[in-house]
Amino acid sequence: MPIVKFLPADISVEVPAGTCIHEAAIKAGVENLHLPCGGKGTCGKCLVEVVSGDVQAGGHTALSDALRQEHLVMACQTKVSGDLVIRIRPVHESTMRALGDSHLLVSEELLPDKDAPMTPLFGVLHLTVPQASIDEHYSDWQRLVRTMSPVIDDLPVTTDVGVLRSLAEVLRLQDGRVTVSLQETDCGLRVLEVRPGHEDVRGCGLAIDIGTTTVAVQMVDLHNGEVLDSRTAYNGQLCRGADVISRIDYARRPERLQELRSLVLDTVNGLSREILDNLHLEAETIQAAFIAGNTTMIHLLLGLPPQHIRETPYVPTVNTLPTFNGAEAGLLMNRGGVVAFSPGVGSYVGGDITSGLLCTELPTNSEGVFLFLDIGTNGEIVLGNADWMVTCACSAGPAFEGSGIKCGMRAVEGAIEYLEISADAAEVRYDVIADGKPAGICGSGLICLLGELLLSGIVDQSGRFNEDLQTDRLIKVDNVTGFVLEWGANTRDGADLVITEADIENLMRTKAAIYAACSLILSNVGLDWSMISRVFIGGGFGRYIKVEDAVIIGLLPDLPPELFAYVGNSSLTGAYCSLLSRKHRQALSRIAAGMTYIDLSSDTRYMDSYLSALFLPHTDMGQFPTVAKGLSAFAGLGVRSQEPGV
Amino acid sequence: MPIVKFLPADISVEVPAGTCIHEAAIKAGVENLHLPCGGKGTCGKCLVEVVSGDVQAGGHTALSDALRQEHLVMACQTKVSGDLVIRIRPVHESTMRALGDSHLLVSEELLPDKDAPMTPLFGVLHLTVPQASIDEHYSDWQRLVRTMSPVIDDLPVTTDVGVLRSLAEVLRLQDGRVTVSLQETDCGLRVLEVRPGHEDVRGCGLAIDIGTTTVAVQMVDLHNGEVLDSRTAYNGQLCRGADVISRIDYARRPERLQELRSLVLDTVNGLSREILDNLHLEAETIQAAFIAGNTTMIHLLLGLPPQHIRETPYVPTVNTLPTFNGAEAGLLMNRGGVVAFSPGVGSYVGGDITSGLLCTELPTNSEGVFLFLDIGTNGEIVLGNADWMVTCACSAGPAFEGSGIKCGMRAVEGAIEYLEISADAAEVRYDVIADGKPAGICGSGLICLLGELLLSGIVDQSGRFNEDLQTDRLIKVDNVTGFVLEWGANTRDGADLVITEADIENLMRTKAAIYAACSLILSNVGLDWSMISRVFIGGGFGRYIKVEDAVIIGLLPDLPPELFAYVGNSSLTGAYCSLLSRKHRQALSRIAAGMTYIDLSSDTRYMDSYLSALFLPHTDMGQFPTVAKGLSAFAGLGVRSQEPGV
Repeated sequence: MPIVKFLPADISVEVPAGTCIHEAAIKAGVENLHLPCGGKGTCGKCLVEVVSGDVQAGGHTALSDALRQEHLVMACQTKVSGDLVIRIRPVHESTMRALGDSHLLVSEELLPDKDAPMTPLFGVLHLTVPQASIDEHYSDWQRLVRTMSPVIDDLPVTTDVGVLRSLAEVLRLQDGRVTVSLQETDCGLRVLEVRPGHEDVRGCGLAIDIGTTTVAVQMVDLHNGEVLDSRTAYNGQLCRGADVISRIDYARRPERLQELRSLVLDTVNGLSREILDNLHLEAETIQAAFIAGNTTMIHLLLGLPPQHIRETPYVPTVNTLPTFNGAEAGLLMNRGGVVAFSPGVGSYVGGDITSGLLCTELPTNSEGVFLFLDIGTNGEIVLGNADWMVTCACSAGPAFEGSGIKCGMRAVEGAIEYLEISADAAEVRYDVIADGKPAGICGSGLICLLGELLLSGIVDQSGRFNEDLQTDRLIKVDNVTGFVLEWGANTRDGADLVITEADIENLMRTKAAIYAACSLILSNVGLDWSMISRVFIGGGFGRYIKVEDAVIIGLLPDLPPELFAYVGNSSLTGAYCSLLSRKHRQALSRIAAGMTYIDLSSDTRYMDSYLSALFLPHTDMGQFPTVAKGLSAFAGLGVRSQEPGV
Repeated sequence: MPIVKFLPADISVEVPAGTCIHEAAIKAGVENLHLPCGGKGTCGKCLVEVVSGDVQAGGHTALSDALRQEHLVMACQTKVSGDLVIRIRPVHESTMRALGDSHLLVSEELLPDKDAPMTPLFGVLHLTVPQASIDEHYSDWQRLVRTMSPVIDDLPVTTDVGVLRSLAEVLRLQDGRVTVSLQETDCGLRVLEVRPGHEDVRGCGLAIDIGTTTVAVQMVDLHNGEVLDSRTAYNGQLCRGADVISRIDYARRPERLQELRSLVLDTVNGLSREILDNLHLEAETIQAAFIAGNTTMIHLLLGLPPQHIRETPYVPTVNTLPTFNGAEAGLLMNRGGVVAFSPGVGSYVGGDITSGLLCTELPTNSEGVFLFLDIGTNGEIVLGNADWMVTCACSAGPAFEGSGIKCGMRAVEGAIEYLEISADAAEVRYDVIADGKPAGICGSGLICLLGELLLSGIVDQSGRFNEDLQTDRLIKVDNVTGFVLEWGANTRDGADLVITEADIENLMRTKAAIYAACSLILSNVGLDWSMISRVFIGGGFGRYIKVEDAVIIGLLPDLPPELFAYVGNSSLTGAYCSLLSRKHRQALSRIAAGMTYIDLSSDTRYMDSYLSALFLPHTDMGQFPTVAKGLSAFAGLGVRSQEPGV
């Protein structure tokens, strides 16, 4: 069989002739060969150099002469025909930067309802169970359950035989004072342990948000709701497809589904491991996890085949998941701990959206209609009020999460989160998360940047740079025009921070998809923008977004600034609340059951609406009257979020 | 350390000086040394011969000179002080006979409500799940659950991740035709497997009755309710105490509790093994078990310390047990199968009674009041109607189960179940279960026998033999007078079948305890016998009992014969019904919750009432007017049971 050697790692592997180069790379354990398009040969991100040997190019390959002269081929489309030496090109700088993990800037004020009783998925109760007597003639187990009644809400309570074996003794050791560990699953409550006396038993839980691009994990003390630590990382599946469609396509073969499952589990468990090490805790301490994610991400996390999500009639295996234990779910936690999921609505509106709505104070009927935008790699939109809700989804792309943008990064230490450009384009003033030199720019910074570029005339309304501008900040990168935000001398890794025309196109496609979907769902229910009383914006942009700039670029509609509220990573916040409170878990089910899904993919007007929005702010300036009026109303500072974002 | 050798087995064991002989016997694995009183030195059944060596007699030992001359000591009260040789006396013939297992005579007409839907603890459904479409836009899991809705009664339905992983494919393989395996636990339904097509999946279940003396196991085909096989055996714990009190005392030390648990598990699992072998089935086929038993038996089966059952205020660890899986319960069955229990009412009214009532058509308020007697080693009594019930318990002894009676045996093949004695006491005519030579006499036979002995003047009303009677059937056995039912030449094992005066005393104590408890519970609620409209009698007597004889001896009250119904082993029948039907399981909970327990042990009138009943039929003949009137009404045959008994 042919032998393929990969440089610079210098790893060799034997594979049958006809194997794709990227499959040989997986077999060899080469880690930095990424397939954002899922291996369809459309993104060109898996280009590798053939140093020596012969290959057999696939049917889809139509590379430029220039690339062929450099001996570059697409690893996903090119097959091994004999012994080969392949060089993997260095991974894009910003991707490298982004894949490094660092601390989230997280507020400790997240619990939305501090007065709600603590009914976490795993709880520890200090009880005093009355001793048996002629008047209190109940069995030991009945007396225990009766004492717990204030926190059990008529749920069935069960236990295992081990707890019953020691119960008679334990209840009589310290005058009935006991410490009870209690777990809630979807079939009720389970007493895991009853110890004599009032002991401190530590129980921690994870709130997890699994996004297509970004994964966030919070460690929570289930006793008091304190957030002990939070981390984010890019989803390890990114190297196998940038969006849910390419992941679904990639997962078509069982071993690839398994691979995607392992990749996201590695991401989640890697973050948990870091947190555990930081806090000096054992994995057994993690007794519960509450997970929110879109429908595809949850299918991949559990190894459920996702194909039918993207095939008509677009039906997933499951929307409302049962609870599992830690071992079944594959999470780094107590094997017998409970893992619960936020319920989804359909293939393209998942548990991340229901979870996000949980933490949003929805107006009642008389107060008008709210709009909820969750801007992730998929954009999901919910319209309604406390009594009715409709929802739709659009493929937005990960641009505002910093992925696919040359100098983009997540909202972590070192990210530019706010900036202003002087009128002559000579000066760029910016704020960096945790101060110091910048490493890149996160979602909130990108919104500012695009707005400032437009306002200062550096780009025109079609997103093209004004090539006549007299500034040394306009440069050429790989034949594409770019604008230098900061020179290498002042950046963390010494490379210039540049935004290119390709990056701007990317951001415009994202904002156009979201705005088009909002317009269409409004018209679908016979409303228009004037009827909106509140706009909630969720997403991983950063700690705050500058609403004026988001309106100027046409990401958000032209409404009075006071109607907007930025709720940050609301999916994670909802997971956190659900981990801690049964009231919230029950509310989640009601939210999921009450939502009506509208399928935009079958609406022929969507593409028109999208193309109209592919402009700054929009081709129909009548929809942006304030922007059209000379943008004069948009002075002032950014609107801080309701809840500091994650 | 001293060495103790046991004869005739010729097994030696080394034990520390001061060890009790019976503990040395346990250590040596000697099996036929029984402690009916639980090792308190009160029953004298553990007498062993000291062949050589020195022993140290315990404080309680007060043996007669005769026994001392024979070098007999009580193994439970006597300690090893040096090397010893001990001879174990042959176990009583009838005990040997009784401990052998044989087939139950069981009817196949047990299912009380053939029209009730089959909702067994483990069920297999053949479904056709509609394919997803624009109109049927539910997830795969939702469509499956919706299709099951006729059998799920709004219970929560859950599953494991493995089922979900194959669900999308399985639902699409054969146009939605699937075979679903479903388990019901106390937290709802669990889908265990979904296979494509309509397949035959065999699922069997066990209905188990665990009595203090007798254990009965039925194997049921859960698809159609057919009883595939049934077996009984004496409870293996018999050698460690004849009644619940001696078992509780014996179980005071953790290793002894463990020993008792193993003994009864060996009995149950031994019966299951025989059944499996007979049917050529694997243990994995057993997917469910429903267990009825008194509170102490259930505690011992699960290894729950039973001490508090017999200590004031008489509170058990648990009355209403959660479901367990097969592995937790320790049963020979599918490890993941479900094990459920009939709910008990209190320490002395257990799940065997609620289970027994399940199969009894209770009169409504307007029809009067019923009396339910469950005559086992403990006697339990329930009084009431469909709207209210009171219950009490008494320690009856195992006499009517054949234990503690020289020629007693269970109602299995070879047992005399009916007999008549000629007026001159010369002739005894009897019926044997499954015909052939008799091996002993079961409960129904003992009732006949005692009635006939009284009617024919062989015993007087105090239970003493008329020594003047001219018949060679009256003999002396170990200095006690006995009556020969059949000579050795015509019995299975060649030994005479004899009933002794001690046996008769034993039977009288049992019947007196039951009658006294009935009288007292009636007077407690302000009723008398005339208000009873129906008497249900449960117990392992045999296929039928002769009610006239039961009244003559004062076991049953002097009421018109047509009011009596014999329901056999109603506890087992109830377990069988509960295994198969959710309606019955739910009815069980209502029965248990609706019963009020009356504690006779604190009622000072009980002993008076008991002593009055220690006569044939009673010292107060006014309570037995028909018997007093010359017994003339009691001609005719036995009353056949409503449900042929088990």
